[in-house]
Amino acid sequence: MLEVSKRGHAMPVSPFRKLLPHAEAARKRGLKVHHLNIGQPDIETPPAVLEAVQKANIRVLEYSASAGHESYRQKLAAYYQRAGIDVTADEIIVTAGGSEAILFAMLSCLNPGDEVIMSEPFYGAYTAFTVAAGVHIVPVLAHIENGFALPPIGEFERVITPRTKAILICNPNNPTGHVYRREELEQLRDICLRHHLYLFSDEAYREFCYDSPYVSALHLSGVDEHVVLLDTISKRYSACGARLGAFVTKNKALYAVALKFAQMRISPPGLAQLLGEAATDLPPTYFDATKTEYLARRDLMVSRLRAMPGVECPLPGGAFYVMARLPVDDCERFGQWLLESFSYENQTVMLTPAAGFYATPGRGRDEVRLAYVLNLDTLDAALTCLEKALIAYPGRTQPLAPTLQAATL
Amino acid sequence: MLEVSKRGHAMPVSPFRKLLPHAEAARKRGLKVHHLNIGQPDIETPPAVLEAVQKANIRVLEYSASAGHESYRQKLAAYYQRAGIDVTADEIIVTAGGSEAILFAMLSCLNPGDEVIMSEPFYGAYTAFTVAAGVHIVPVLAHIENGFALPPIGEFERVITPRTKAILICNPNNPTGHVYRREELEQLRDICLRHHLYLFSDEAYREFCYDSPYVSALHLSGVDEHVVLLDTISKRYSACGARLGAFVTKNKALYAVALKFAQMRISPPGLAQLLGEAATDLPPTYFDATKTEYLARRDLMVSRLRAMPGVECPLPGGAFYVMARLPVDDCERFGQWLLESFSYENQTVMLTPAAGFYATPGRGRDEVRLAYVLNLDTLDAALTCLEKALIAYPGRTQPLAPTLQAATL
Repeated sequence: MLEVSKRGHAMPVSPFRKLLPHAEAARKRGLKVHHLNIGQPDIETPPAVLEAVQKANIRVLEYSASAGHESYRQKLAAYYQRAGIDVTADEIIVTAGGSEAILFAMLSCLNPGDEVIMSEPFYGAYTAFTVAAGVHIVPVLAHIENGFALPPIGEFERVITPRTKAILICNPNNPTGHVYRREELEQLRDICLRHHLYLFSDEAYREFCYDSPYVSALHLSGVDEHVVLLDTISKRYSACGARLGAFVTKNKALYAVALKFAQMRISPPGLAQLLGEAATDLPPTYFDATKTEYLARRDLMVSRLRAMPGVECPLPGGAFYVMARLPVDDCERFGQWLLESFSYENQTVMLTPAAGFYATPGRGRDEVRLAYVLNLDTLDAALTCLEKALIAYPGRTQPLAPTLQAATL
Repeated sequence: MLEVSKRGHAMPVSPFRKLLPHAEAARKRGLKVHHLNIGQPDIETPPAVLEAVQKANIRVLEYSASAGHESYRQKLAAYYQRAGIDVTADEIIVTAGGSEAILFAMLSCLNPGDEVIMSEPFYGAYTAFTVAAGVHIVPVLAHIENGFALPPIGEFERVITPRTKAILICNPNNPTGHVYRREELEQLRDICLRHHLYLFSDEAYREFCYDSPYVSALHLSGVDEHVVLLDTISKRYSACGARLGAFVTKNKALYAVALKFAQMRISPPGLAQLLGEAATDLPPTYFDATKTEYLARRDLMVSRLRAMPGVECPLPGGAFYVMARLPVDDCERFGQWLLESFSYENQTVMLTPAAGFYATPGRGRDEVRLAYVLNLDTLDAALTCLEKALIAYPGRTQPLAPTLQAATL
């Protein structure tokens, strides 16, 4: 009689968290579990940035302005300017993580029942935000075969209805690692202009592009009113726990509305803003070492995955994820089996089954997302585990070469 | 054609912020503006608590669990236990301020179109959360004449419909300072049990009760499944900027649903959790000095307000607010006039017009909320300003004694 809400029922369990109880079981079996499942970088949070918080002279930890400290917004605007993104402090609302920016975008732009188009697979938590906002995801399928490039723009056009209000992209992409080329983004721009759609662009992984330059949605011309840039310092400075993001738009009417949502929760986290402000002072070379490290890891991961029989895996151009197709019946079952029934040299691996990144039921069952947020040696050990597991797994769907089969006996 | 959402339109401008541009104008006139308008305490954030953050050894500022750090939840549970509130760590979800706890409660318990009953006046931001969640406030009027006590329970009963899902109280109350007596809370309990309603209890000001002991909704017997305690460290430890709150319920089904909303944003602010954890180690005597200070301020404010001709003001038992009825045509107009057209010894006052604390249009136009978050001397000066202003204000609605009128000439 005392019931929870319908949206509460509809709320998905985080795809990252589903296997957690099984990981606990593995640890209880005494195994070392390598976490390839979550985008929590192992990179050190820059000490200078933590120091800014630790040396701050605070008498009263007060509310900040609802849009965030003016000083932080000024410096964040300068950071964007250096990246060729022409925004000012009063076009930025500082948020509690990128998450809150996504929520503000959904609540400010869409009515319940409205539709937002996403190329699938997409970041699993987007589903949760759409449920919270009462809006619907309309997926357009991207294919592993072409590296999860933007689906043909006709596919987007085909699914537009009078309820379509926005297209949401993540660039560089989580979970696929795909980095959208300028032509892809221009196609999206054109469709947004033609159909009066918002373009939500989650650019959390901006600094991690390995093969081609990064293009922001705010680099595009003629679409300023439509773009909401969703951002976070989580990955950029390995400061996920800070919960500091940004909602950025040059659309003044939209900004005013989003600011009312920001006023609802009075202000974004204060200590994190000190950290974020200090981070804008880091030299541009700060990212060099991190990028070099991620690049080496990506190359290791992709080359090892490609060497595993039956595994398919594009070369991701950015972020720190690889989406791979595995020769197994069901990656959720495989993931659970890894934690409950498998070990190699007292280790096993936790990965994220990709089904939670698809809106279409049944899709992605043979795909996983693997994050390369472990150092090279650990990553190599984790991939060896995965390799051995794919040979031993009873639900394998492709025959193995006789030599490999023999090796497992 | 590119439109903002209907809920974005409906979203109220924060009643605390409406007068801000006028305050800016006053500062440009060279005036000192005394802020009686916002609940930002001037009390020092406990240095030991800030030190816990500042001395923490952090290599990577990682995501915490979605419910918050286990260690913090354990200690927070112990804090509640000391207050006679029987909850455990796994009945707590740590949130980004009390705000996020309110949002999670609305989203988890109510469907769009559902109704939540509030005694009005109520904390203005509640309106924003109901707009975000697509639910409706059904107000029941509390009266200044009896100190904003709980309206007769029959008034609640009268407005219950099949869409009513919850009653939301704030205890001690913001904006009225009323502290609900056990009998009032038991009446609310009974009605929640009888009609299968959730009881949302915002207890942000728990530690600030001056005349009678504080009773939590979780002190009541037989209603555990119905209660959601909404909490924050903002006022308790003068750490508003930390943005750290809690959603607490013993209802396991509801907890599981709220946790899914918590997973949506991955984790609550990390640095703030270090601060919050340290705060639970403060001795119970920590609150003594703060309470003594607030009590002195309350008594000063109430006695001075009552000495002003035509001003009506109950004695609030808790929190750090006074609701007063002023002899003016419209408090919003008066508030603006204070900032634009008045000064006394080069000072003026900013206050919060109470209309934003009422759901019913037209109510509260002659009421203001005044926060006593300034030291006694400043508070006294601010109240002198207010006294002089009430004499000089052209929109005054009650005649002044001839001596007072003469004094203004």
